[in-house]
Amino acid sequence: MIVTLLTDYGLRDEFVGVCHGVIRRIAPEVPIVDLTHGIPRHGVREGALTLRNALPYAPPGVHVAVVDPQVGTERRAVALRCAEDDRVLVGPDNGLLALAWERFGGVVEAVDVSRSPHRLEPLSATFHGRDVFVPVGAALAAGEPLADAGDPLDPDELTPLELPQPRREEGALIAHALTVDGYGNIALNVAHEDALAAGIRLGDSVRVNSHVGTVVQTFADVSAGELLLYEDAWRSLALAVNRGDAAELLRLRPDDEVRLAPRG
Amino acid sequence: MIVTLLTDYGLRDEFVGVCHGVIRRIAPEVPIVDLTHGIPRHGVREGALTLRNALPYAPPGVHVAVVDPQVGTERRAVALRCAEDDRVLVGPDNGLLALAWERFGGVVEAVDVSRSPHRLEPLSATFHGRDVFVPVGAALAAGEPLADAGDPLDPDELTPLELPQPRREEGALIAHALTVDGYGNIALNVAHEDALAAGIRLGDSVRVNSHVGTVVQTFADVSAGELLLYEDAWRSLALAVNRGDAAELLRLRPDDEVRLAPRG
Amino acid sequence: MIVTLLTDYGLRDEFVGVCHGVIRRIAPEVPIVDLTHGIPRHGVREGALTLRNALPYAPPGVHVAVVDPQVGTERRAVALRCAEDDRVLVGPDNGLLALAWERFGGVVEAVDVSRSPHRLEPLSATFHGRDVFVPVGAALAAGEPLADAGDPLDPDELTPLELPQPRREEGALIAHALTVDGYGNIALNVAHEDALAAGIRLGDSVRVNSHVGTVVQTFADVSAGELLLYEDAWRSLALAVNRGDAAELLRLRPDDEVRLAPRG
Repeated sequence: MIVTLLTDYGLRDEFVGVCHGVIRRIAPEVPIVDLTHGIPRHGVREGALTLRNALPYAPPGVHVAVVDPQVGTERRAVALRCAEDDRVLVGPDNGLLALAWERFGGVVEAVDVSRSPHRLEPLSATFHGRDVFVPVGAALAAGEPLADAGDPLDPDELTPLELPQPRREEGALIAHALTVDGYGNIALNVAHEDALAAGIRLGDSVRVNSHVGTVVQTFADVSAGELLLYEDAWRSLALAVNRGDAAELLRLRPDDEVRLAPRG
Repeated sequence: MIVTLLTDYGLRDEFVGVCHGVIRRIAPEVPIVDLTHGIPRHGVREGALTLRNALPYAPPGVHVAVVDPQVGTERRAVALRCAEDDRVLVGPDNGLLALAWERFGGVVEAVDVSRSPHRLEPLSATFHGRDVFVPVGAALAAGEPLADAGDPLDPDELTPLELPQPRREEGALIAHALTVDGYGNIALNVAHEDALAAGIRLGDSVRVNSHVGTVVQTFADVSAGELLLYEDAWRSLALAVNRGDAAELLRLRPDDEVRLAPRG
Repeated sequence: MIVTLLTDYGLRDEFVGVCHGVIRRIAPEVPIVDLTHGIPRHGVREGALTLRNALPYAPPGVHVAVVDPQVGTERRAVALRCAEDDRVLVGPDNGLLALAWERFGGVVEAVDVSRSPHRLEPLSATFHGRDVFVPVGAALAAGEPLADAGDPLDPDELTPLELPQPRREEGALIAHALTVDGYGNIALNVAHEDALAAGIRLGDSVRVNSHVGTVVQTFADVSAGELLLYEDAWRSLALAVNRGDAAELLRLRPDDEVRLAPRG
C-alpha cells in the first residue's frame, strides 16, 4: 500500500530524507509519494487545504501529514480510517486532517497513536514526524491493523477545522485568501457557484480591492502583468497576474479579506 | 518502463506531488525520475537545453516535460517517438522537446494528445501537467500504444527551437549565455571546437566583457573569488567564479551576449 | 540494496535528477533515499554531521555523499565498508565520511575509486557525483564487490574530521555552533552529559552570549519569539526561537563560539 507524505519540513534539511529512511526500514517496498514538503511553517490550514485538494489524485493508501506547532506538548497524535476508499490518515490532531476526512466521507475508525507500539524510542520532543507519525504510517502500510496502532478514540473527539466563509455586502462579495502558491497565485474561499451567484462571469471586469482584473479561463488570456480571476485547478476562484505575482501586487496573505465587485 | 519528469513547477507547492500521485494511479510500479522541477518559470529554452543534456544519463523511457506558458490556449500537446533508443517525449509543442528529439535522431512518430483518451476529466485550464501530459505519459509507460494516445500528427509540423549562434568579430568571439545554474555558473553556446577555433586554450587569460578570467579545468584551479572559463559537465564552455557567482559578477542572464577576447 | 544520497547540489538544477538517472541505468530496481541535497555549498563539516545523524535511521546500504570543493583536483575518491551493519560509504576523501564511519565502528575495508572501472567516460572535471561517486555506488548496490571498485587503500590513510571542542571558562561553557537548519535552529557541540556537567538543567534560565533563554523540552514550552535551549532530535543541545529564527537573533553561523552561562 502506498504512503504519501505532506509536511512543512522543507527540503533544505535532512528531515524528509530521514522520514524516507524510517519508512524503508519498516516497509522496504512500499511506494512513497511526497505530496509536498513546502507547506508554510506551522500552516495547519494551508496543509489541510492542500491535503484535501491533492489526495483525490493519489491512490488510496496511508496518508501521513505533519504540520505540528504543538509538537512535544499534550496535543494528540492520531491515525484514522475514512469512510471512502479505505484511506488512512495519520498526523497531529490539530485540524490538519479534517478537510481530507470530510472529503472522503468522514471517519469510521480512529486511534490515538501518541503511545503507539510502532513509535521509535527514544522519542524526541521535537521530531514526531520521524518518531511517531512516519513509523506508524509505515507500519500501517506494511499491513499492521489500525486497531493495534494505538488506543481507541471516538471519532467525534477529533479536532475539526473551521474555514472563513465569504459574505455578500453592498453588491460585493467579501472573500478570503486561503492559500498563496509559490508563484503568488491566490486561491479564494469562493466556489464556482458562489462566483456565479455574486454575478462574476467569464469575460467580466471585476474590482479586486483597489485593483481591476478580468475573469478569464487561463493566464495567457490576459497580457503580461495583468490581473486575472480564474477557476483554478482545484475549482476555486483564484487571483493571478500573468507572468507576475498577484500576492505581491495585492499585498495579500492567507486569511486576508478580498473585496470582489463586478463592474458589469 | 521508466517515467522522467522535468518542469518549472518548483517544489514548494503540491504540483509535482500531485503528478506523482497521478502516475501511481495509472502505473503503480514504474520507476519515476525527477530530472528537475527548477526550470525557471516559463523558461522553454532552459527547459529544452536541460532536457537534452540530462536525458542521455537516464534510461530510455517516457520523458514528460512541462514548461507551458500557453497552457489552456490552443497550443498543441504532443507525444512522439525518437529514432534512437525508442525514447518517447511528451509535452507542449512549443519547442521544449525539440533539442531532445534532435539529440536522439529525430522524430519517427507523433500524435496530438490535446484530446487524448488518457487525459483526466474534468480538464482544468491551468494544470495540464496533471490533466494531460502526466496521465498520457503514465499510460504510455504502462504499455499503451503511442498511436492510441492521440490524433496522428506529421512530425514536420512539430515546433522547432532556434538557439542563438556565436559569431567572430574583430578577434573576439561573441557568444551568448544559454543557462545560469543555481550557483551562478553560466553555460555559453560555445562547444569545445568553437573555443579552440577562437584561440581559447587551457591556461589562457581571456577578457570576458570587462572582466578577465583564466581557462582552466576545474574550480579549484583558481583562487576563491576568481573568474574561470572551463568545459562544463555537458561539454559546453562555461563561466564560473570559484566559491562565487559568475552571473552576479558579470550581470548576465540567459540570452545576453558575452564577448570573449583571448589575451594570448 | 538501498542507495542513499547526500549532497550540496540543491534541487534547483538537474544535478540530482541526473544522478538518479545514472543509478537507474545501472541498478534499475534499487530503492533510492535522498537524505538531503541542501547541505550548504562546500559545507564538508555540515555534510559530515548530517550524514552521521541521518544514517542510523536509514536501512544499511550504499551511502553516497558528495560535498566536494576540490572536485577535479588530485583529492582522492573513496569507497569503504564500516565495521557495523555492513554499511558502505562512497564519496570524496575530505572528511565528509569520517563521522559516519566512526558512528558505525570504523573502517574495515577501503578502496580508491578515482580510476574505478565503474566510473563514466568521458570523465568531466566538475561533476564527479555523476561520473564517479554515483555510478560506483550504484554498481556496489547492484552487487559488485567492493574490492573490484578501485585500488586497495589502507583505512589509516583516510582523511579524518576534527570538530571544535567545548570548554569551561569562568563558570560558563564555551560551545560552538555546529549546524544551522532551515528554520534557524542551531545545533551546538554540547551533548546531554556536557550540558548537565555545566549545570544546565531543565527549567533553568541561561545567558546565551548577550541574550537569555530557557531550558525546555520543546518549542511550545516558551512563548512565540522567545529563545529556548533544548535537546534536539539528534540529542545535541540546541538553540531555537519559538516561531522565530535563532541564528538571526543571535547572529550565529557554523563555527562561531557561543557562551552559555546558567543564571541559577
